[in-house]
Amino acid sequence: MKSKCAGKQTLVFSAPPQVISSAAIVGEMEGQGPLGSYFDEVLTDDTWGEDSWEKAERKMFEQTVRRALEKVSLQTGELDCLLGGDLLNQIISANFAARELKTPFLGLYGACSTMAEGLLLGSMLIDGGYASRVACAATSHFSTAERQYRLPLEMGGQTPPTAQRTVTGAGCSILAESGYTGQMLYRNVFVAAATIGRVIDLGITDASNMGAAMAPAAADTLSTHLSDTGRSIRDYDLVVTGDLGGFGSEMFLELCKDNGVDAERRHLDCGNLIFSGSQKVDSGGSGCGCSASVLNAYLLERIEQGDLRRIFFMATGALMSPTSGMQSESIPGIAHGVVLERK
Amino acid sequence: MKSKCAGKQTLVFSAPPQVISSAAIVGEMEGQGPLGSYFDEVLTDDTWGEDSWEKAERKMFEQTVRRALEKVSLQTGELDCLLGGDLLNQIISANFAARELKTPFLGLYGACSTMAEGLLLGSMLIDGGYASRVACAATSHFSTAERQYRLPLEMGGQTPPTAQRTVTGAGCSILAESGYTGQMLYRNVFVAAATIGRVIDLGITDASNMGAAMAPAAADTLSTHLSDTGRSIRDYDLVVTGDLGGFGSEMFLELCKDNGVDAERRHLDCGNLIFSGSQKVDSGGSGCGCSASVLNAYLLERIEQGDLRRIFFMATGALMSPTSGMQSESIPGIAHGVVLERK
Repeated sequence: MKSKCAGKQTLVFSAPPQVISSAAIVGEMEGQGPLGSYFDEVLTDDTWGEDSWEKAERKMFEQTVRRALEKVSLQTGELDCLLGGDLLNQIISANFAARELKTPFLGLYGACSTMAEGLLLGSMLIDGGYASRVACAATSHFSTAERQYRLPLEMGGQTPPTAQRTVTGAGCSILAESGYTGQMLYRNVFVAAATIGRVIDLGITDASNMGAAMAPAAADTLSTHLSDTGRSIRDYDLVVTGDLGGFGSEMFLELCKDNGVDAERRHLDCGNLIFSGSQKVDSGGSGCGCSASVLNAYLLERIEQGDLRRIFFMATGALMSPTSGMQSESIPGIAHGVVLERK
Repeated sequence: MKSKCAGKQTLVFSAPPQVISSAAIVGEMEGQGPLGSYFDEVLTDDTWGEDSWEKAERKMFEQTVRRALEKVSLQTGELDCLLGGDLLNQIISANFAARELKTPFLGLYGACSTMAEGLLLGSMLIDGGYASRVACAATSHFSTAERQYRLPLEMGGQTPPTAQRTVTGAGCSILAESGYTGQMLYRNVFVAAATIGRVIDLGITDASNMGAAMAPAAADTLSTHLSDTGRSIRDYDLVVTGDLGGFGSEMFLELCKDNGVDAERRHLDCGNLIFSGSQKVDSGGSGCGCSASVLNAYLLERIEQGDLRRIFFMATGALMSPTSGMQSESIPGIAHGVVLERK
């Protein structure tokens, strides 16, 4: 790899792009969770006035981008590129939102790792000198995910304790070149580096235990990142995983230990943060919108305020589909990571 | 935009990445078409010995990457990144192939525009100094696409003359930094620039006329590219669209004329190139694998040989899903373009 690369999979940004704004919109249940007061909008109707859940999901994606731009008085036409995706087949939420936003658009599919994949590529667009301002966004919706991946909600099917609840939510970050002089919501948050994940599969076949399917990929990306950069876990205030949930987080910490990394006291998981123990959500939240909304509502604000100086934000994706499951395939996972720093 | 950007949507590579190798594997019918002799392998069994079409599609993706690497004596471990996607829900062909290849992986969803989206981002990774060698790949399979998007093949449904046949095929390009000194299949083919497309929707609702749904996006990207770079259509030996097919190509040329661009004598479409008029394919080929296999088997070779000096390769994607269709949505399109030059 070349000068801007550290080790095997890590990109180091020589002029770290700045996160100048963000927004997050979530569903009612997410709004009732511990982070409720941080979100820009909490829906009270899960169709948000649209005639389908899918159209509501698309509206969340679009409105989150518009909201993040409005906070810093930017127009959609001032964006050089929008990068994003969602969990629906053919990423229709992102595609149809991009149609309304009319910006140049790069569609991504990284399952629940999409927010980190977007930040990684968006930062490269800016640091590489190809763009001045980009938006990175991701969304998911409980009811569209259930309809597509599982069974009709009307059946009232039971879930095992390892199951996670797909978050109804969307998040968007606006990145700008280092030294940006326009209006800013955040002045201190930079993307310093990023690690591209590999697809890892330890043979998990239980679609109700996706945290376990993603944990090996998260442990692999974290180890690679530390080895690529020559850092230790103590160089980070937090390692934040996307949506491993309760069981997946335990497995992640065990696997890290096997790799010689003791992440226990420095680890938080967005799937654990977004719902409280008293909400009936089995093993926590999941979905692209989980890490996207927690990052863009809560984590960026904590970095801006100085509570956190450097975090490794590692969104995790389970890469199965109903078709691959029916064809007896196990569930591979991937985790992309970005280093967010206060400067 | 900054120094490496021309105009609104175009990235100009200051050290143009080199296409050092490529490979393409196609199905039997594609092998019987006019480009048959150019492909690395023509399948005689559309499951390629696997127990499902989906697994055969994944195998095509994986084997195409391996074949392209073998031609220049590279190992998968020497790749800094693999970028790619396919048409299946949750891009399982690419994801599961990436699991086998064990390389850092960025999953893309641009429908049939994926090959160009991969080249665009892969070139940025290299020109920006973040990677030395990347693979960009895309695949599609007639039978998996019919199963997912349309009706069971066993029904023997009729198609209208505007319908296109999804190509069974996969293609992969290996990019390396300018000045690469290792073994090369091509010595003269460079990616000089790229234009990121916008999502355009003129309200086409007929899923059997996807060429018409994608033509407006292709015309928009071409106009923007010419305006961004200050070039005219005469600066290109060819403008090659991905899979507009017969009807879509006619519409594309009309729309270009409306934009003041006379592309007629400089336009070819991969969907028209891959099948002959005597093959029963209605309006030509389509699918990610169409432009991916035609580019990697045929077009790169013609540039290498000096028959073509500069082309604008513009893969086109129809961004609908069966769900969006059932919810009465029209079909938006997108087209990403890359400038391939002989040097």
